[in-house]
Amino acid sequence: MTVKSEPENLTLRFWRLMYQTYTLLKRCEDQIFGEYGLTTEQYGVLVSIEYLGEPAKVTDVARWLERSTNSVSMIIDRMVKAGLVKRVRDRKDRRAVCLSITSKGENALKPATLGGLEFIQKILSPLSSEDRRTFVSQLETLKYDLLSYLNPGVDTEKVKRNELEKKANLRKWLDLYALPSTPGARRQGGRKKKAM
Amino acid sequence: MTVKSEPENLTLRFWRLMYQTYTLLKRCEDQIFGEYGLTTEQYGVLVSIEYLGEPAKVTDVARWLERSTNSVSMIIDRMVKAGLVKRVRDRKDRRAVCLSITSKGENALKPATLGGLEFIQKILSPLSSEDRRTFVSQLETLKYDLLSYLNPGVDTEKVKRNELEKKANLRKWLDLYALPSTPGARRQGGRKKKAM
Repeated sequence: MTVKSEPENLTLRFWRLMYQTYTLLKRCEDQIFGEYGLTTEQYGVLVSIEYLGEPAKVTDVARWLERSTNSVSMIIDRMVKAGLVKRVRDRKDRRAVCLSITSKGENALKPATLGGLEFIQKILSPLSSEDRRTFVSQLETLKYDLLSYLNPGVDTEKVKRNELEKKANLRKWLDLYALPSTPGARRQGGRKKKAM
Repeated sequence: MTVKSEPENLTLRFWRLMYQTYTLLKRCEDQIFGEYGLTTEQYGVLVSIEYLGEPAKVTDVARWLERSTNSVSMIIDRMVKAGLVKRVRDRKDRRAVCLSITSKGENALKPATLGGLEFIQKILSPLSSEDRRTFVSQLETLKYDLLSYLNPGVDTEKVKRNELEKKANLRKWLDLYALPSTPGARRQGGRKKKAM
């Protein structure tokens, strides 16, 4: 297949579509998470704590969200006031401020995650499994490319290895939130309850 | 090629990567546009006016940016104060508030666009032309899917046709901003100046 070279056109379309698609996605998420009393930003903080494992360092939460520690701290202040998370001391490093999720936070996170996952599955449904796989892997390429742009000399292989180490938490999280309609959930005989 | 079915995993990865990639892209853009005294939001407003053609209705700018008219109006207030755009009356509909770009706005928009296009070309460079084309077309599918989710019953074909009608402005814009290094710009013998 011959591909006509249109570098400017594709560059502009990519640029505009990344913005539009993300903005629309954010508006959909604001609606979905709003039903559970969460903003999209607050939801992100809760998910990152689940991913990282409790108690999670604020600096790790900020890195996971690709945001500055300052902006994440402001979101956390409001979440502490709303009773969604609490600040705790790290057992190993007494100076580090860590976060854990309150039961109120857990009670909002679970249905919000199910609602969000169902929504994303619906949105991705026009793409074939293979197309989804390709799309996700290209997104990943772009992500590491952007990361290198912002942090020249960053060891992206090391970043990838660190993310793989968190896979145990990811697995736990997936088991916990597996949608009843997915093959993984059926194999486990339905949704598991987290021991609290 | 056999694709192992991992619906939850791909759904989650897509979700997280869309967030991370966009957030990183936004941080890069903040840096780039900041060099020309613009925020990424202000840059978006200037580009939409160029795209739509002057004078551009505020409601059309908001629709182009996929944002609410209220949030765009707040950005515009600051841009009017900063002397980047001015409010004008529509010639056909005297009640509609329209926008045109001041010469200060033009002087910021041009180098910011060149910087932005160069950056996006660099970021996309690890993907082959064919991969870029596939990625952009999948992004487009997702965009219209999200648009239908937010506006049930929306005529996406009509939206697509409206966007095609703006192609003349897009072409003008591309000619104006074509990077000297691209085939399009070389064919035209370098960058064109816009008649002001």
